[in-house]
Amino acid sequence: MSKAVVLLSGGLDSATTLAIAKNEGYEIYALSLNYHQRHIAELKAAKKIAMQFKVKDHKTVEMDLSWILTSALTNLNLKVPTQLSSHIPITYVPARNTLMLTLALGWAEVISAHDIFIGVNALDYSGYPDCRPEYIEQFQKMANLATKSAVEGQTIKLHTPLIDLSKEAIILQGVKLGVDYSLTVSCYQADQNGYACGVCDSCRLRQNGFKVAGIDDPTPYR
Amino acid sequence: MSKAVVLLSGGLDSATTLAIAKNEGYEIYALSLNYHQRHIAELKAAKKIAMQFKVKDHKTVEMDLSWILTSALTNLNLKVPTQLSSHIPITYVPARNTLMLTLALGWAEVISAHDIFIGVNALDYSGYPDCRPEYIEQFQKMANLATKSAVEGQTIKLHTPLIDLSKEAIILQGVKLGVDYSLTVSCYQADQNGYACGVCDSCRLRQNGFKVAGIDDPTPYR
Repeated sequence: MSKAVVLLSGGLDSATTLAIAKNEGYEIYALSLNYHQRHIAELKAAKKIAMQFKVKDHKTVEMDLSWILTSALTNLNLKVPTQLSSHIPITYVPARNTLMLTLALGWAEVISAHDIFIGVNALDYSGYPDCRPEYIEQFQKMANLATKSAVEGQTIKLHTPLIDLSKEAIILQGVKLGVDYSLTVSCYQADQNGYACGVCDSCRLRQNGFKVAGIDDPTPYR
Repeated sequence: MSKAVVLLSGGLDSATTLAIAKNEGYEIYALSLNYHQRHIAELKAAKKIAMQFKVKDHKTVEMDLSWILTSALTNLNLKVPTQLSSHIPITYVPARNTLMLTLALGWAEVISAHDIFIGVNALDYSGYPDCRPEYIEQFQKMANLATKSAVEGQTIKLHTPLIDLSKEAIILQGVKLGVDYSLTVSCYQADQNGYACGVCDSCRLRQNGFKVAGIDDPTPYR
């Protein structure tokens, strides 16, 4: 059974990605990052999802990123926008996906895994630069020069099964694979029990996904 | 005055790199990583060096990497080798340089810096894959797709002023720029006061550098 490191934020996309990796037959090593994010409730969600899918291991790495003062997810003095934007929104966290992929790369080397899954999505996303296919491709090239495993000829493959999917297609696939979306937290300002605001861009994209998919939205709103 | 983020471990190479960046006229933002490394004394050294060179800011980010069980720098049950090896040694920490460069990338974006300095060295090094020019080149390509600044056309430049230098050339340059090497800690098993073992590969490379450079070795050995 091949091992895969799956980045698991606790949101809708990463839960679906985990389900896909599991369905493809990988032994799952789920990795979450506690970066003192505003929506820390997503980490509780990640735990529940990891348990539901009986992952082999689930690691939560802690790194305080509150010094990233430019993001509304790490600087609590900034407001989370309540409308979709045509620009890269203030919820963008500089270098966050690179940081998470790098931790996944390190863990993969430690456990001799050669596959990393990340639920980035280039269509129905918020304009984040580190969700684009060209970024993922370059990360993989860099990763395959960065490690001892790479020097020894063992390449790492990045899997992005959601990259071309719309939110509704993601939801439909997840439902088929048994993802319980009531457990997942997408809201950028979820309260400590995971109740969603319903108005941030992440909530709006998610709500719309359920609507277009024709599936009842199981999200607990406050 | 242009800002530069300089990775500062507290060792000989990073101290010299900082001195070079300062000499080139950059305003210095020094970045250290407390990853619960065996040679945690290097972080005290980093503080002293940052003070000596009057950096604009010095940030130490904490991230416990003791789960990286394959490295003698993060797993205290493994022994630090006392001989130089022709292989990648057990002191190699998977993905560490990528992690530090990624944090530098994040900080650079927050403070609007476009230059990152790292003291990697491809000649007189220990075989680490993430010290090679081809790795650095790919990291830079990836970085220039990863951020909002990059999308807005502002590229990041990675500076590796030591990449082709021998240890003695590094030392000679550092001495010229006023680096006090007695403050720096290179030893992988330095005690808490920074006293070096004198026998690990890092100590041996450093000792030999001073010898070939014809400079008295100011390292405090225990």
